[in-house]
Amino acid sequence: MTKPKTGVWLIGACGAVSTLTCVGARAIARGLKPPIGVLTESPLFAGLDLPGVDDLVFGGHEVRDTDMHCAAREFRDRAGILDQPLLSVLHEDLAAIDRNLRPGYIVNPTTAVKELAKNGKVARARSPGKVVEGIQKDLREFQERNELETVIVINLSSTEPPGHLPIEYADLEAFRKSLASPRPRKGVTASVLNAYAALDAGFPFINFTPSPGSTIPALMQLAQERGVPHMGSDGKTGETLVKTALAPLFAGRALRVLSWEGYNMLGNRDGFVLNDPHAKESKMRSKDRALRQILGDEDTHSSVTIDYVPSLDDWKVAWDYIHFEGFLGARMAMQFTWQGNDSALAAPLVLDLARLAAFAQRKGESGLMTWAAAYFKSPAAVEDQSFVKQFALLETYVARHREGAKRSKKSQ
Amino acid sequence: MTKPKTGVWLIGACGAVSTLTCVGARAIARGLKPPIGVLTESPLFAGLDLPGVDDLVFGGHEVRDTDMHCAAREFRDRAGILDQPLLSVLHEDLAAIDRNLRPGYIVNPTTAVKELAKNGKVARARSPGKVVEGIQKDLREFQERNELETVIVINLSSTEPPGHLPIEYADLEAFRKSLASPRPRKGVTASVLNAYAALDAGFPFINFTPSPGSTIPALMQLAQERGVPHMGSDGKTGETLVKTALAPLFAGRALRVLSWEGYNMLGNRDGFVLNDPHAKESKMRSKDRALRQILGDEDTHSSVTIDYVPSLDDWKVAWDYIHFEGFLGARMAMQFTWQGNDSALAAPLVLDLARLAAFAQRKGESGLMTWAAAYFKSPAAVEDQSFVKQFALLETYVARHREGAKRSKKSQ
Amino acid sequence: MTKPKTGVWLIGACGAVSTLTCVGARAIARGLKPPIGVLTESPLFAGLDLPGVDDLVFGGHEVRDTDMHCAAREFRDRAGILDQPLLSVLHEDLAAIDRNLRPGYIVNPTTAVKELAKNGKVARARSPGKVVEGIQKDLREFQERNELETVIVINLSSTEPPGHLPIEYADLEAFRKSLASPRPRKGVTASVLNAYAALDAGFPFINFTPSPGSTIPALMQLAQERGVPHMGSDGKTGETLVKTALAPLFAGRALRVLSWEGYNMLGNRDGFVLNDPHAKESKMRSKDRALRQILGDEDTHSSVTIDYVPSLDDWKVAWDYIHFEGFLGARMAMQFTWQGNDSALAAPLVLDLARLAAFAQRKGESGLMTWAAAYFKSPAAVEDQSFVKQFALLETYVARHREGAKRSKKSQ
Amino acid sequence: MTKPKTGVWLIGACGAVSTLTCVGARAIARGLKPPIGVLTESPLFAGLDLPGVDDLVFGGHEVRDTDMHCAAREFRDRAGILDQPLLSVLHEDLAAIDRNLRPGYIVNPTTAVKELAKNGKVARARSPGKVVEGIQKDLREFQERNELETVIVINLSSTEPPGHLPIEYADLEAFRKSLASPRPRKGVTASVLNAYAALDAGFPFINFTPSPGSTIPALMQLAQERGVPHMGSDGKTGETLVKTALAPLFAGRALRVLSWEGYNMLGNRDGFVLNDPHAKESKMRSKDRALRQILGDEDTHSSVTIDYVPSLDDWKVAWDYIHFEGFLGARMAMQFTWQGNDSALAAPLVLDLARLAAFAQRKGESGLMTWAAAYFKSPAAVEDQSFVKQFALLETYVARHREGAKRSKKSQ
Repeated sequence: MTKPKTGVWLIGACGAVSTLTCVGARAIARGLKPPIGVLTESPLFAGLDLPGVDDLVFGGHEVRDTDMHCAAREFRDRAGILDQPLLSVLHEDLAAIDRNLRPGYIVNPTTAVKELAKNGKVARARSPGKVVEGIQKDLREFQERNELETVIVINLSSTEPPGHLPIEYADLEAFRKSLASPRPRKGVTASVLNAYAALDAGFPFINFTPSPGSTIPALMQLAQERGVPHMGSDGKTGETLVKTALAPLFAGRALRVLSWEGYNMLGNRDGFVLNDPHAKESKMRSKDRALRQILGDEDTHSSVTIDYVPSLDDWKVAWDYIHFEGFLGARMAMQFTWQGNDSALAAPLVLDLARLAAFAQRKGESGLMTWAAAYFKSPAAVEDQSFVKQFALLETYVARHREGAKRSKKSQ
Repeated sequence: MTKPKTGVWLIGACGAVSTLTCVGARAIARGLKPPIGVLTESPLFAGLDLPGVDDLVFGGHEVRDTDMHCAAREFRDRAGILDQPLLSVLHEDLAAIDRNLRPGYIVNPTTAVKELAKNGKVARARSPGKVVEGIQKDLREFQERNELETVIVINLSSTEPPGHLPIEYADLEAFRKSLASPRPRKGVTASVLNAYAALDAGFPFINFTPSPGSTIPALMQLAQERGVPHMGSDGKTGETLVKTALAPLFAGRALRVLSWEGYNMLGNRDGFVLNDPHAKESKMRSKDRALRQILGDEDTHSSVTIDYVPSLDDWKVAWDYIHFEGFLGARMAMQFTWQGNDSALAAPLVLDLARLAAFAQRKGESGLMTWAAAYFKSPAAVEDQSFVKQFALLETYVARHREGAKRSKKSQ
Repeated sequence: MTKPKTGVWLIGACGAVSTLTCVGARAIARGLKPPIGVLTESPLFAGLDLPGVDDLVFGGHEVRDTDMHCAAREFRDRAGILDQPLLSVLHEDLAAIDRNLRPGYIVNPTTAVKELAKNGKVARARSPGKVVEGIQKDLREFQERNELETVIVINLSSTEPPGHLPIEYADLEAFRKSLASPRPRKGVTASVLNAYAALDAGFPFINFTPSPGSTIPALMQLAQERGVPHMGSDGKTGETLVKTALAPLFAGRALRVLSWEGYNMLGNRDGFVLNDPHAKESKMRSKDRALRQILGDEDTHSSVTIDYVPSLDDWKVAWDYIHFEGFLGARMAMQFTWQGNDSALAAPLVLDLARLAAFAQRKGESGLMTWAAAYFKSPAAVEDQSFVKQFALLETYVARHREGAKRSKKSQ
Repeated sequence: MTKPKTGVWLIGACGAVSTLTCVGARAIARGLKPPIGVLTESPLFAGLDLPGVDDLVFGGHEVRDTDMHCAAREFRDRAGILDQPLLSVLHEDLAAIDRNLRPGYIVNPTTAVKELAKNGKVARARSPGKVVEGIQKDLREFQERNELETVIVINLSSTEPPGHLPIEYADLEAFRKSLASPRPRKGVTASVLNAYAALDAGFPFINFTPSPGSTIPALMQLAQERGVPHMGSDGKTGETLVKTALAPLFAGRALRVLSWEGYNMLGNRDGFVLNDPHAKESKMRSKDRALRQILGDEDTHSSVTIDYVPSLDDWKVAWDYIHFEGFLGARMAMQFTWQGNDSALAAPLVLDLARLAAFAQRKGESGLMTWAAAYFKSPAAVEDQSFVKQFALLETYVARHREGAKRSKKSQ
């Protein structure tokens, strides 16, 4: 009996995170690289029935004029993480992924996204219903051709600018009706149509970006109705990860944080898209919330600045200054500099989440997977922003399933 | 009916931490300063029957030739935290504390401690048993004169150098016998005799330093036998606090920490005493352990350097460099600088612990209070070094008592 | 024979820099504080005929409703540098300065300056000519009443926003004519009218801000014509000082600076005024220039961000990240954090410049004092921005005069 | 007519700096890489008759069992600067250099050096005179075989531990006599015998390490006698470079540096050798001196710590904390982190110095080249340690020769 295969459908399949996810998964699958950063490969998950890294089959949507090889070479040149010998060995693996790529859909795109897509092969459809149909056709075709047990759909495309959400997002019935309109209404975006298409077809959806995705009320209903797991939003890497690990220190010592100022510099396509001030605002809002929740202090002055510094390429440098007051008004300070590669930090999270979503579906779980909160900057329906507390949710989830696994073993 | 008073007996009563504890407690008691840094004043503890800050009466042992006023003025000049107007208003309060100070005992002292004590009024006793008797006499006299419900004994004296612990530390019976010897045996130190004296007399003991104190087997037995709570060891402020908050981030993301190098600079009496290489070693050892436990990686290269930089006076500056490896071998780094005042970070912990120990005794609890682990660098009998996990132990303890408080209220 | 007295007329006399200058000068004059930061008190200037710190008499213009005592107390509370005992001892000295303060003039003020001045005693005059007259009257009255050899006028008022300079700034004749207009034309500002008033009356002018001041062509002509020394612009403290010391390192090693990103946080009135985006722009422009000149590389990506972080009060924290390329394309980085008090860094420069300007006038020098370039962010008529090179101009100037002093001594 | 070739003889030819120097020079010569970091390729040197980078022929001594190809591959793996395609293109160039390598001499070696050399092909000779003869034979053979105008000898071998210098170092006559002794006396080291051999044979010598080299009195005499230029000591890269650029800022503002604490971490062979505490001491001594000279303050507390952190490989991370006092006792701080590759910073300096030494010899100059001070941590016979001031010596030297070049052109 062959092991069942799990599909991983990446929206934005040739972006830096997607590319590194694919290359890394294949390098691990072939034993070329150790699975550093992949928590689901750690002893914590031993004995759980997760799909193996080598059981993952990758495909996806892309709107730019590129493929997995180009993207990998570009990343190698910009970030210095991938090297040519590795890419050579994986040449055929990447070609196989390329055969699973399809033109992506753009819906009410920003100027920056239009710019990215201008030479690409964008899938054409006007009515939202047709977009959904087209996506589902691609997903089913991917599943059948590769004989996949399921397909995990992961949104890794450029961040959509925030805005008033359309009224029909609030209710599944209304949402379904709106699909029939001849054109997408103002505010309707690709992340939501992708989430609808996935969940409606019975495929788990993971929203790795701050875009709305599956966490609007209409789709929360849909996931319950269809019995499908989903997760989101906004993968937690870099500065926010550090913030949500550090801030509980100040709260746990009753120290008064006067100011927490964060400066981020990055030089990749993300930085380019964030030059659109609307997209930037969305990013900055989701960060701030975490800090205030943990500190529980409305008076803390905080700011998050994101600047595009081309020479950094795919690397990110963040500096945070934390000014705080202690006993008898003593004023103290902490500062940190984080020098990381966001893609290398994000890619193993994508692998983890894909495997965990497949696992949850196998176990018959449905709706929002709140135990995955530690993976997200803005975890839906989870109040506590402390990284370690969120991580404890995952530990509890794993312990429960391991207990179950033991019991079912005994009873056999 | 007057509210019961709780005694706080500080060993090393005119050191920086003790002084700031006393001045701060009186400033808060008189409403002159807000209780920043005092967690037991936060909403978390609302409704629990802790002694009020204004119900604490301070006294203690000191071996140097100084008093509370001198110490406060010295701290004001060195650290710039206390100001003259505040000290003037509190003049009589500090004088009252001075009346509760008694000459301290030194037992097998290091050269540095001998130096500190050379002009002081050191209590004379040779046999360990006589030392214990003398301490207990001071404690009981303190209690009676001030009509105190109990006395919490807190070790804040200079760190004792590590060494082979005497064999009689392993067993209460043997320990008791050894008290009769005409002189203290090699390795017997003041922190242990103080802990014995306190617990034997029914007074809770808190070991805020890395010295052995009450956590040797013989005294663990004694605390159980006498039904007294005790806590330790080594108050967690500054760099280690940050480490135990940050390290779970790396563990929780399966990142491989290659090197974690910490450099500490400080300019106060602590720094002077740490010039004794033995004392330094003890400090450095207790720090390292926390990191390894959380990261679970024996290969991590780590070092902790402590340097005496006189111009910093009572301030501490620490710089940590964390070199780590992520997905596909990507090498990243984080660094932080911590600029804090150890005394201002430690003093409110002393207040918290004194109140919590009194509370635990009121509730009839005895033995090691493991739920206070978050307050210590080397919490006895607690494996997990993650700050947030340790803090959760405290939250659980508080929740249990609050539940109890509600129930007993209802049943009235 | 009594020593001659030198007047120092501060425009913005109760601002933080002015206040600290006055308090510090008096503290040094009375031997209460050592002259740290005052270069003209160092051996470099030994033997030169500079006015003594105790020979300086302070006065000035202020538009806000405050005085030297209020300002000193405010600074003490915000910055923690001054202490009450010092201010008490200097009480009468500050009162004497208060008697030399006069209401300042505002000319085409920004909203922020109007806000500052709204409760103040602003001098009234509409026509530029009348403003000049009023200033000169105040200066002469100051000189006569205090029997001063000369008066050094120093602009320390809030930065004026940049803009198109009026056409008449280009020529002295046109400028003089424009003074007769019934109201100040658009673009005419207080710094220029103050500079005109000073130079026209034969008093040296120092522009310590980035406002135009005396360095417009018309006033350069005037200074020559009247034979008066002047200096400017924009006192070099903090981040720019570090930049102009550090950048020559990269130039001198032929390293290619890819990016130099500077983030400044400050919490004082300067920060408040810089919230006016125009004023901010002026600040940011003058900084950038220095960097490009030294590096000689048009491709360097550089930015300077200034944020208002109220908790810092009068302190400034700046973080700079320098990304550079070396041999064979090796990418390296340097970062620094500067934690300084701008007022404490600026005040001794004001003392130095006042004394040097008085010295230059004694020696019969006139026009722009380019040898003072090291004191300024945007030194007029000096191309080289390297701090050490600019400092060498000062060393040469001093050496020349010391030589002269020796020769004249011998010939006596 | 073919252009004359210049030989560059590297002692420690397969160390990281030497290797990068050779690879880089060939990459630049072939137009594969731009000459970033090579000051002598900048406009400053335009019009001067320096040997071209493509006119340099490399050879040298090595005591370890390795060659240029191995060393380059090792460096590629450890530092990530060289890449395989570049090494492939340069394969034959490196092979040509390999043919110019000869077994090196070790004289009174440290344990660490013995360890490095244990599998190598060390040249055998006991008497110092024989060592000198052997070196000179190698140099002349290198010159003849490659038809070189001259040979520049550069010491890039491991730092020798400091110690009492032998009495004969003080005088050329005594030194010459001592060469005849059957074995090297205690304290006599390879750097000195190499320097003697080079200068005596008429070849310029450059001491790029803190070892004694050519700057002992006996060899200063020899260089004058033979009319040969020499330079040293200790190439200035990294933290000291930053220090000597930054410290003049504090001196030039009369700020009082209370403490300057430097922490260096490095992971390469240099770090390994520095584990020998004697070698470490020599490094730390030479750094300190520069700081004190510039600050002119004996009270400054300063320390330099160097730690071996293996994960950093060939990279160095340094953190410096500068605590300083300004006007009215205001305490401020600056800190910087330097993340550099010492080899990539050193290699272009080696190219510069080789070319400059050849130029000086062409111009008939002899003795110590003090105008090259900016290249060295401990420039012999130059008091001023300010980087910019030292750099001005170089600018002056260049300007003089350019002037000369113009004049001689005109007169033709």
